[in-house]
This record gives sequence, C-alpha cells and structure tokens, in this order.
Amino acid sequence: MADINAVARQFAEYYYGKFSANRADLVPLYREQSMLTFESSQHIGVGNIAEKYTGLPFGQVAARISTLDAQPTPTGICIFVTGELQLEDQEQPLRFCQCFNLVSESGSYWVLNDIFRLNYG
Amino acid sequence: MADINAVARQFAEYYYGKFSANRADLVPLYREQSMLTFESSQHIGVGNIAEKYTGLPFGQVAARISTLDAQPTPTGICIFVTGELQLEDQEQPLRFCQCFNLVSESGSYWVLNDIFRLNYG
Repeated sequence: MADINAVARQFAEYYYGKFSANRADLVPLYREQSMLTFESSQHIGVGNIAEKYTGLPFGQVAARISTLDAQPTPTGICIFVTGELQLEDQEQPLRFCQCFNLVSESGSYWVLNDIFRLNYG
Repeated sequence: MADINAVARQFAEYYYGKFSANRADLVPLYREQSMLTFESSQHIGVGNIAEKYTGLPFGQVAARISTLDAQPTPTGICIFVTGELQLEDQEQPLRFCQCFNLVSESGSYWVLNDIFRLNYG
C-alpha cells in the first residue's frame, strides 16, 4: 500500500488547490455513490455534488491547511483536515474542518464520503 | 439499515457522555484493528487506545456537540462532530472536531477510525 500520509498530502494539495481556484475541477474526484455534506446540505452523486461545489456563493478563496491526518480503511483512506478559508471580501478567515473517505481503485482514489463544516466562534 | 442519523446521535451521546465522565468506559467501543489519532499522537489497538484515553491529563470535562453529521459507508457509518470541551480549570471552552468510521457487526457498532483535533484560535 502506498504511504497513506503521502497520498493524503497529495490529495489535500489537489483538493484545496482546486477548491480555491476552480471548483469545477473537483468533479472528477466523485462518483455516483459519492456523498457530500456541506454545512447542513446533503448531496449524493457526481451531478448533485458538482452543482453544489460550482454553485457556492463565493469566488476565489485562499485555503490554508492547519492539520492533516490520515488513517487506513478497508477500502482506502480516511483523511481529516482542519484549516482556514480566507474569502476575498472578509477580513477574518473562516475556520473549517473536513473529513473524507477515499476509495482506492485501479491505482487511483475517489471520494466516497465528504463532510465539511465551518467552525464558528 | 437502521436510520444512520439516529445511530450517530446515539453513538455521540454515549461517546461524549463517557468522554466527559469516565473515559475508561470508552474502551468497549474499540477492537484490535481500531486506530485513534488524538491531536498528533497515533494509537492502534484496544490496549493502546485505552491507555491514551485513560491517561489524558484532565479530569471531568463538559463536552457540548455543536454539529453532528453522518453518512453511510460500505461497512457502517462515517460520523463527523464539531463541538466544545469545557475543562474544569479553564475559563474558555476548547473547540474540537472529530470523525469516526463505525463498523456494523452483529447489530452493534465498533470504532475503526477515530481522529480528534482541537481547533485553536
């Protein structure tokens, strides 16, 4: 098995890079069985997840990862991230946390579970 | 399949109740394959996880759940929690987030993945 911490780092760099710059590029990470909980809204399937990500009501953001943890699962990797999002029109960054269950398939990974929450304070 | 949100609520009530009052009672939730990442320390197996939980350097805490999300996985449930811990000797509560992958077995659930992080601010 590939070093899961290296896979987690590579995934997080890709994911938050695309989340910051062009969220439509996140879509290939998802499949029909994929689930996204983004704040309190729930989305199942690549089409609904694409619609949610591309419809988020903010443009470019700067995402900073504070912590990145990973553990193996029977089908892939569990990844857990805390960090900050800096929106263009806001002074204070928003703290967030997010977990993913990635599934390993043919030497690559796709996202089965994706749960995102802001940490209001 | 049982309503996963009901299972998640029941699990979280049990887990944070025991986490607050008597962390030794968390041990039956774990198995030899279980993994715990608590802040930056990693623990595998029920004995090591028990040692970590019972050795945490604080007594009773009050845990408050802010958000609780759940999604199904091929083997059980993915649970994601944000909340606050109020320690006896601290004025400000500590914000935390935590994810679990629970495995369904014989009508019950055990914890395969457990990742806990404080959100410093």
